[in-house]
Amino acid sequence: MTTKLVVPAGQAFTLSSGPSGASPETLAALGSPILYHYDPAFLETYAETLELLRRAFVTESKPVILHGEAVLGLEAGIASLIRSDDVVLNLVSGVYGSGTGWWLRRYTDRVIEVEVPYNTAVSAGMVEHALEENPDVTVVAAVHCETPSGTVNPIAEIGPVVDRHGALFFVDAVSSWGGMPVDLDQWKADFVVVGTQKCLGGPTALSLIHVSDEAWSHIGANEAAPKASMLSVLDWRDADGVVRPFPFTPSISDIYGLRACLEQYLREGAEAVQARHAVVAEATRAGVEALGLSLWAEDRSVCSNTVTAVAVPAGVDDAAVRKAARFDSGVMLSEGEGSLIGKVICIGHMGPSAYPMTPVLAVSGLGRALRSSGYKADIGAAVEAAVSVLDG
Amino acid sequence: MTTKLVVPAGQAFTLSSGPSGASPETLAALGSPILYHYDPAFLETYAETLELLRRAFVTESKPVILHGEAVLGLEAGIASLIRSDDVVLNLVSGVYGSGTGWWLRRYTDRVIEVEVPYNTAVSAGMVEHALEENPDVTVVAAVHCETPSGTVNPIAEIGPVVDRHGALFFVDAVSSWGGMPVDLDQWKADFVVVGTQKCLGGPTALSLIHVSDEAWSHIGANEAAPKASMLSVLDWRDADGVVRPFPFTPSISDIYGLRACLEQYLREGAEAVQARHAVVAEATRAGVEALGLSLWAEDRSVCSNTVTAVAVPAGVDDAAVRKAARFDSGVMLSEGEGSLIGKVICIGHMGPSAYPMTPVLAVSGLGRALRSSGYKADIGAAVEAAVSVLDG
Amino acid sequence: MTTKLVVPAGQAFTLSSGPSGASPETLAALGSPILYHYDPAFLETYAETLELLRRAFVTESKPVILHGEAVLGLEAGIASLIRSDDVVLNLVSGVYGSGTGWWLRRYTDRVIEVEVPYNTAVSAGMVEHALEENPDVTVVAAVHCETPSGTVNPIAEIGPVVDRHGALFFVDAVSSWGGMPVDLDQWKADFVVVGTQKCLGGPTALSLIHVSDEAWSHIGANEAAPKASMLSVLDWRDADGVVRPFPFTPSISDIYGLRACLEQYLREGAEAVQARHAVVAEATRAGVEALGLSLWAEDRSVCSNTVTAVAVPAGVDDAAVRKAARFDSGVMLSEGEGSLIGKVICIGHMGPSAYPMTPVLAVSGLGRALRSSGYKADIGAAVEAAVSVLDG
Amino acid sequence: MTTKLVVPAGQAFTLSSGPSGASPETLAALGSPILYHYDPAFLETYAETLELLRRAFVTESKPVILHGEAVLGLEAGIASLIRSDDVVLNLVSGVYGSGTGWWLRRYTDRVIEVEVPYNTAVSAGMVEHALEENPDVTVVAAVHCETPSGTVNPIAEIGPVVDRHGALFFVDAVSSWGGMPVDLDQWKADFVVVGTQKCLGGPTALSLIHVSDEAWSHIGANEAAPKASMLSVLDWRDADGVVRPFPFTPSISDIYGLRACLEQYLREGAEAVQARHAVVAEATRAGVEALGLSLWAEDRSVCSNTVTAVAVPAGVDDAAVRKAARFDSGVMLSEGEGSLIGKVICIGHMGPSAYPMTPVLAVSGLGRALRSSGYKADIGAAVEAAVSVLDG
Repeated sequence: MTTKLVVPAGQAFTLSSGPSGASPETLAALGSPILYHYDPAFLETYAETLELLRRAFVTESKPVILHGEAVLGLEAGIASLIRSDDVVLNLVSGVYGSGTGWWLRRYTDRVIEVEVPYNTAVSAGMVEHALEENPDVTVVAAVHCETPSGTVNPIAEIGPVVDRHGALFFVDAVSSWGGMPVDLDQWKADFVVVGTQKCLGGPTALSLIHVSDEAWSHIGANEAAPKASMLSVLDWRDADGVVRPFPFTPSISDIYGLRACLEQYLREGAEAVQARHAVVAEATRAGVEALGLSLWAEDRSVCSNTVTAVAVPAGVDDAAVRKAARFDSGVMLSEGEGSLIGKVICIGHMGPSAYPMTPVLAVSGLGRALRSSGYKADIGAAVEAAVSVLDG
Repeated sequence: MTTKLVVPAGQAFTLSSGPSGASPETLAALGSPILYHYDPAFLETYAETLELLRRAFVTESKPVILHGEAVLGLEAGIASLIRSDDVVLNLVSGVYGSGTGWWLRRYTDRVIEVEVPYNTAVSAGMVEHALEENPDVTVVAAVHCETPSGTVNPIAEIGPVVDRHGALFFVDAVSSWGGMPVDLDQWKADFVVVGTQKCLGGPTALSLIHVSDEAWSHIGANEAAPKASMLSVLDWRDADGVVRPFPFTPSISDIYGLRACLEQYLREGAEAVQARHAVVAEATRAGVEALGLSLWAEDRSVCSNTVTAVAVPAGVDDAAVRKAARFDSGVMLSEGEGSLIGKVICIGHMGPSAYPMTPVLAVSGLGRALRSSGYKADIGAAVEAAVSVLDG
Repeated sequence: MTTKLVVPAGQAFTLSSGPSGASPETLAALGSPILYHYDPAFLETYAETLELLRRAFVTESKPVILHGEAVLGLEAGIASLIRSDDVVLNLVSGVYGSGTGWWLRRYTDRVIEVEVPYNTAVSAGMVEHALEENPDVTVVAAVHCETPSGTVNPIAEIGPVVDRHGALFFVDAVSSWGGMPVDLDQWKADFVVVGTQKCLGGPTALSLIHVSDEAWSHIGANEAAPKASMLSVLDWRDADGVVRPFPFTPSISDIYGLRACLEQYLREGAEAVQARHAVVAEATRAGVEALGLSLWAEDRSVCSNTVTAVAVPAGVDDAAVRKAARFDSGVMLSEGEGSLIGKVICIGHMGPSAYPMTPVLAVSGLGRALRSSGYKADIGAAVEAAVSVLDG
Repeated sequence: MTTKLVVPAGQAFTLSSGPSGASPETLAALGSPILYHYDPAFLETYAETLELLRRAFVTESKPVILHGEAVLGLEAGIASLIRSDDVVLNLVSGVYGSGTGWWLRRYTDRVIEVEVPYNTAVSAGMVEHALEENPDVTVVAAVHCETPSGTVNPIAEIGPVVDRHGALFFVDAVSSWGGMPVDLDQWKADFVVVGTQKCLGGPTALSLIHVSDEAWSHIGANEAAPKASMLSVLDWRDADGVVRPFPFTPSISDIYGLRACLEQYLREGAEAVQARHAVVAEATRAGVEALGLSLWAEDRSVCSNTVTAVAVPAGVDDAAVRKAARFDSGVMLSEGEGSLIGKVICIGHMGPSAYPMTPVLAVSGLGRALRSSGYKADIGAAVEAAVSVLDG
């Protein structure tokens, strides 16, 4: 491994678990003139962006944009939604689900958790069972894609269970939406948070939120819901600068970037986007295994199509491997998080990083780096396995 | 007044009270590739940005960047600093000072206010007097530039008074720093919040914060100070991705923009920047008066060099005037805020909008708009007055 | 006058006789990824650009793009069109018409010129008369807008005269097309050259050319017409990389810029564009005269709507004035050319510089500069005169 | 092979024989504001660019920039340098050398050629021999890198031979300079043309030229040397807008791009740049052979480090292969030219495309495309061979 970047920033391949890079069209949009937020031209842009987001969400309700990275959407959502009298069932299959619980307990003492090993998923049956045992649950919280685990929970199956029970359904779809099927109607989802820097390939400074009428009612009835605060969802309801003034200056440049991302997403079409993610994910998984490694996920059926977590082999220093991949090959991979640090290396294939050559770049860069750490990786076989999936 | 934008966004002159536009160099930086936040190239960028900010702040302490618009810096600062046993003296000379009080009372019941008419300033003597009357004050809060009023409080004089009293000094320098002298040492300032979209001419999504050792101690002793939250200042202390991990994904694109702004600011030099703001502000004030209007400020000695608030003449609809200025001349002016809505029109001259032709554009655009509302504005005299100041 | 640029490049106002600046949309396009010229995505872009140009030219014939500044279009056109047996009538009302004659004589000995003072125009009657006296004329050459003179020849009236005579009509419309009416059909024009950096507000590296069927025949019959050369028009006939290969690598980035310019032009619409140029030109002329100066043109009826030439007052050093306007006010004006150097200062108001505030900026910047040279300029009256036209 | 682009423009890998893509820094520069060419800020930029080019050329003489793609430099150079009484020895080892002869014969009847098969090189011995047989030769013309052949002539050895003979040495270094050693002093080169869109990774609209004092004298003595023409080298001698006026408007945006390219080149350093090209080229060649293909070059000793020409296997349709590589994998390869069309596929690895993953992308994309044409390509072995060189 060299100690100097062989590949400068502009020539590197960002195959991280997010940000996932951005298209030239998105980058150009980010460099648009910074207007006054009440300039009629910006007001038009903001309205258009909200409408594009609504169409991308395939919903009738007006979405909400919060002006901070996706964790703001999650924190503000929990702060706004959860009352001290709520009973929350939190589904934990990874680091993010665990973190959700931490936040939930800030607002109510009554948090029940269903926790499964972090390389598996929570099944609809488990949720059904937990709700039967806890009939007073008012809110169920779940993470769709557990990014560091590279796994997904079956939200499409869990949603109807939650709905039948009459609870609100809070979903973290930060790193899944835009790469995998998300059907807000079928999910019966009430509060869904999506990131801009994941499958949309956009800036990192916004949270995209779907709020159902039931969720708005619940928030409206929550006297402790933040107002006049960065943590307020209410402040931004219908706040487009025309119907209602902006609570504070929106992130002008990031909005330009978001609008460009949404235009590209809608132009390509949700189905085409998802198909692209599916094949690239499958090729990546095949390549990783042919390289001689194991997927972190216990079973392929729980693997995400947006990110692949690779189990770090015994005796290998994951930090050295990631560093070598970036320094020598220009391939930027991600570390795990929380209890998964050191146990996984994550390969992102989402948005701008979900194209056919991604698996080839990932296994070549990772393979070279493993070799520089003394691990025998079969790069040739890995590329062949990946290509074989691509060529179907 | 026409009903269609004669001047498209890209050709408009943003003379608002912020955002104030951005230089081409800054816009190009905003469009730089979105890297993974732990990419070594981005880590280097982040470290450089913090160092440039430290140099711009002319301080030894490591500044803090929060990843949300300046109101986040203010809210997070108050949430972190103010304990329920604090006694706060809040200086109110405008809408923002009033809002600060609102936030302060969220964290302590003991807020004392010195309020003056919103077209004047709070003097050091008033602060001295209030502190003598309230010897248990632990924190003094002030706004440097009251943007909607176009006025400044004499922070350089107030600071030493606060210091002698032994209280912490919290200052909102959002729209003054970078255009007017701010001497953190002389001010004895403990917590200062600066915006990026004002005199720096940058993106709207970041808060720049100076925290003194005393303020860090006070925050450290505050058990209720937010942690694992968007409102946390502590989370971001020393968090540069190397010394400490990032609490969440920083606003990548906005950081690129900020770095470019700081480079330009330091290249030009604080003195040159301030001199430019001073002459443009004076020319604007002269032009406004020659146009036949009055400054909102009671006295020129309290006028800000970054924004000029013009009193709306009786019988004139300020919204129609601002609209006409933008639609017909491409000159974007600002509305007042809070109780000043309808009473003032604000002309920003900060950062990229503080160049010699600004006063000419401002009075010509405003003058044409006033005439279209039936008000007799002497545009020729106004331009002559402005030019006369410029040519000193 | 200062000796240091007060206004940096990015904040300057380019009111020159071309380049005339560019919109943010155009600049963003110029920064698009540089593709291989046979990349299918670029081939699509090239075809689209030619089609947009055809629509903008309002013609059925396929236009030609040459990959060099407008002088390439003029030189290549003359080199391709003019045979040694051609008899050419060249209309000279300024520096560019004179230069055309210089080039024409490179290819034929038989060049007849109608020359008028450079502050007037050639009338259709003069052309009629010259053609009657020289019945063997095969080609008539004319300049539409004589940029340094700020004057236009009445091409719409001259064209039919040339047509009745059966000669080919070669027109330099470099700095008029896109700002003033150009009707290729009515003009009966056979070879017309347009610049990209003038009224289109684009890059400086391309020539846009209309060639009639008759002109193609004439060129086809010219054995000396350049082939396999930068000066070849034939090489680029139908050369779009698909129908015919590119003779050499086209100017990728500049093509992106051109496409963006054409999209903006067509979106706004020719009539709206021309109306904008007309009022801004009239306001500029009124402002210049009220400033105490004289237009260079003998008569307003010959003034161009794209550029105004101002007569330099006796005793004034035009170079010092232009320098002061740029250094002190950020207003970039142009020098004359050839025999007009020192006699005129040119104010461009074309494309991105043809917006309402242009006349205000022009007379204020010019006025301040004149004063710094000791000339008494009435800036107030000039701005009032300009505004009066705008509000007319 | 699909019929629809799977990989959009912005995500494609341009591994063509030029243009070779551009870094984000270069693209940002191309989008800088288009200034008037006599704006003092642009004049400074132009002077800086010339000085950076001089430093990159490692020469004392002031280089010349012509404002058209590299073929302009070649055509203008020959038009300016070659007099009808010159006797020229033209070295032909490929399509470009052959084309040079075509141009040379436009200006003199006395062109002698040494031609070798297009997969080999002209040796210094051959030149020595030819000059002995033709003692009246006044100019020797050679191509350094024959792009479509992927071969280089040993210019460093030929130069001194030409010098001893007292002839001028005209060298086409369009696609070699910036990727391979070019020592103007050692070469004794008199007129050298370099492209901007090859190893510099820049725009396609400029020619960079080195002219020795002897060449200037020769041109000065050539009465037929073009003046007041796009083909003129003399017009642009010392023409920087200050020392001498610009003959016409320079290509503003492309100059910005060039300056950025030169800054990056000098920052990285010639040696590091060349080392990068050398290893990537070697890995590409190893990969191509392991894929089961043959290099077009007869011998590795004549292979260029900037582009690799692969022999198209019998029965394979090269157009279908290139199309599939681009459509399915986003890997853009080049066609041959002239007599090499259909015989070779070219893989560019120059400037922005000369990084470690290039060979991996090239052989994977090419391999998949070959398979879709029914050819058995061993992609795994190819990637292993390439990686093996990289890790060598």
